[in-house]
Amino acid sequence: MRLSRYFLPVLKETPADAQIVSHRLMLRAGLIRQHTAGIYNWLPLGYRVLRKIEQIVREEQDRSGAVEILMPTVQSADLWRESGRYEDYGKEMLRIVDRHERDMLYGPTHEEVVTDLFRSIARSYKDLPRNLYQIQWKFRDEVRPRFGVMRGREFLMKDAYSFDLDEAGARRAYNKMFVAYLNTFARLGVKAIPMRAATGPIGGNLSHEFLILAETGESGVFVHKGVLDKTVPADVDFDGDLQPIVDDWTSLYAATDEMHEEGAGAELGDDLVSARGIEVGHIFYFGTKYSKPMGCTVAGPDGAPVDVHMGSYGIGVSRLVGAIIEACHDEAGIVWPEEVAPFKVGLINLKSGAAETDAVCEDLYAKLEKAGVDVLYDDRADERAGAKFATMDLIGLPWQVIVGPKGVAAGVAELKNRATGERVELSFDAILARLAG
Amino acid sequence: MRLSRYFLPVLKETPADAQIVSHRLMLRAGLIRQHTAGIYNWLPLGYRVLRKIEQIVREEQDRSGAVEILMPTVQSADLWRESGRYEDYGKEMLRIVDRHERDMLYGPTHEEVVTDLFRSIARSYKDLPRNLYQIQWKFRDEVRPRFGVMRGREFLMKDAYSFDLDEAGARRAYNKMFVAYLNTFARLGVKAIPMRAATGPIGGNLSHEFLILAETGESGVFVHKGVLDKTVPADVDFDGDLQPIVDDWTSLYAATDEMHEEGAGAELGDDLVSARGIEVGHIFYFGTKYSKPMGCTVAGPDGAPVDVHMGSYGIGVSRLVGAIIEACHDEAGIVWPEEVAPFKVGLINLKSGAAETDAVCEDLYAKLEKAGVDVLYDDRADERAGAKFATMDLIGLPWQVIVGPKGVAAGVAELKNRATGERVELSFDAILARLAG
Repeated sequence: MRLSRYFLPVLKETPADAQIVSHRLMLRAGLIRQHTAGIYNWLPLGYRVLRKIEQIVREEQDRSGAVEILMPTVQSADLWRESGRYEDYGKEMLRIVDRHERDMLYGPTHEEVVTDLFRSIARSYKDLPRNLYQIQWKFRDEVRPRFGVMRGREFLMKDAYSFDLDEAGARRAYNKMFVAYLNTFARLGVKAIPMRAATGPIGGNLSHEFLILAETGESGVFVHKGVLDKTVPADVDFDGDLQPIVDDWTSLYAATDEMHEEGAGAELGDDLVSARGIEVGHIFYFGTKYSKPMGCTVAGPDGAPVDVHMGSYGIGVSRLVGAIIEACHDEAGIVWPEEVAPFKVGLINLKSGAAETDAVCEDLYAKLEKAGVDVLYDDRADERAGAKFATMDLIGLPWQVIVGPKGVAAGVAELKNRATGERVELSFDAILARLAG
Repeated sequence: MRLSRYFLPVLKETPADAQIVSHRLMLRAGLIRQHTAGIYNWLPLGYRVLRKIEQIVREEQDRSGAVEILMPTVQSADLWRESGRYEDYGKEMLRIVDRHERDMLYGPTHEEVVTDLFRSIARSYKDLPRNLYQIQWKFRDEVRPRFGVMRGREFLMKDAYSFDLDEAGARRAYNKMFVAYLNTFARLGVKAIPMRAATGPIGGNLSHEFLILAETGESGVFVHKGVLDKTVPADVDFDGDLQPIVDDWTSLYAATDEMHEEGAGAELGDDLVSARGIEVGHIFYFGTKYSKPMGCTVAGPDGAPVDVHMGSYGIGVSRLVGAIIEACHDEAGIVWPEEVAPFKVGLINLKSGAAETDAVCEDLYAKLEKAGVDVLYDDRADERAGAKFATMDLIGLPWQVIVGPKGVAAGVAELKNRATGERVELSFDAILARLAG
């Protein structure tokens, strides 16, 4: 993509109303623009990141055996009356009345809709187990939306719902999601720690939150430092027994300040570390909380109806954009992990309009594109080198290729690693080999 | 994907309330389930088709130089007061009041939001031309939703918005979309004809609809039969002059019955044919209709402010699923064009549970998956051959591989082309070579 034809409104000033670093950087780097309180336009650069995250989340859900569907954003209120949550949910639910005076709502979550869908289709225990997931926009009418996409009103979630015959089956479904989440966050290039959690309005008695560690995180956390070194096993067999992996990850102390009791873990001494984190995932087992009132049953092996055991599993996809920035930035701007970077390479022409640098840049650009490398080419003729450097550091692409007249005369350009700041001069072919290899 | 682990509720009965063939087939083939009037759940098979269409639309927008963004579904009513459309839009607009008593709405279209976004960013004629597009859910509170996803309330659109300095520039933007649409529909495997259209509530004075021809189409159309044979030029240069292509496609008579005047085209004699079609795209040039009241100006080359010239360009992405089925089906079910088929291959095990057919099927399944071919493997042990054949024909995958005990003994399986009905017996290796080649 040529920057001269893109839509990348970077801001020099720090927006006054943005209180946290991810919100400031998302506005400054031209990832989002506010439409109205808590509701954002995703600009081209931000939307590319959002879609990359979404795709990684999708691939890891698929790998675990979950099946993708899409439920509507606008729901019938009647189902929420069946489950008993319609009155409980309070003002965070955006209630809507349609032209025929029917009560509708913009879904803040989809337990009712998916339970209704499943009960209309599943007949027998042979239709189990299933895990249905979607990646869909939701709305929560926050009284005071803030922190950009971290606490917005319209937000993108991955939400999965498992259906099993009994608690043992549901536990297996829960473990699959637990491990899929470990895989997902590892691929996103961040450290996420599962912590036992309160279940809140979703209900149920088994629940974990996943928090990304970041110095600027919203929540205090207390963790055994051994948790920080744990790795995710490669090539998990999702049909196998995942309990040992779950046990391994949950054997050491890890709690949000909400769940941490004064003095808990004191026996750990220096092994207990205090840190900060951002919640990006939450998984729940809640048994028959929805299936029972809503009549979601299947015929068991003996023919008698059984209430289906369910769980639900969320990942805050749009929130992750902010959370990753909280974990991955420096003074100059964002430092994207390569897996979610909007482009892999930023190509800087230090003297756009000069025949020699133009020719080299056009050639590098064409060859990188042809090799399938995502490149953002700063070909702007009316920007100085300093502004181009600052923009490229701000938007945080993993690699910068800097082409200037002196280097071109010597047959080299500079390759800069955004994360380490390391710069090397290389021949054009060597740069291509490094980036397209 | 193994059917035993999928979520594919096919119906044997024809749903009573579905009046058109695409609606009936989408319900019967397990593509969608209604949530409430005009609002649908997309089941796994249907959602795969929707995403394939979405991706082709996206690639052709990108190729034309349009840049992808995402605007919110929930919009502030204030912008619609600025443009003057808030009161005009009537009851089809889903109006919402948030917890702070602010007037909001679920966007039926995004001219106001994108104009507001663009005016907050563009400063100079150097920021033009631009074309910003999104693929986003919209809501139109139809008084009588019907025909499944063809006239639903919550629906997925691709909508693009172009910004130019003057009418000549806007015409170039219009032509790019015109040609991008020809490319898009050709890739989707259907015949779509551009026809001069009324502009309706979007406004403006230049507009074309694109209609897919289908015998069961909703609209009558009158076209010079020469239009039916026109092809889309390969490898268009979107920076070049596209007017000749547009002129070529619009030189012959083509009109919907709405635009067709009694007796028009009579001089064409037998060259004028009457057919039926389904609107799947609509493009508009409307000049300064929104930029002027909303103050979307840029500094022109002389420094004086200029109202930006705009156009908007829609494709009904969810509607296309139904429209393609209207154009592509037979007595037995759907016949997907390969480009949008949810899976390329359906693998039928005629005797699931028998060691010999199981072994052959597992081997074929693994090898096809490894080669990157999307396969739906009917491994169900409790279904008869007849039901498996009927299901596979109904869901319309382009290729069926039929593995039975007799064939396995002879070292062959049957390869069936869904569209032609042609069947050939081939060795397993020959089948792999045909499908993965």
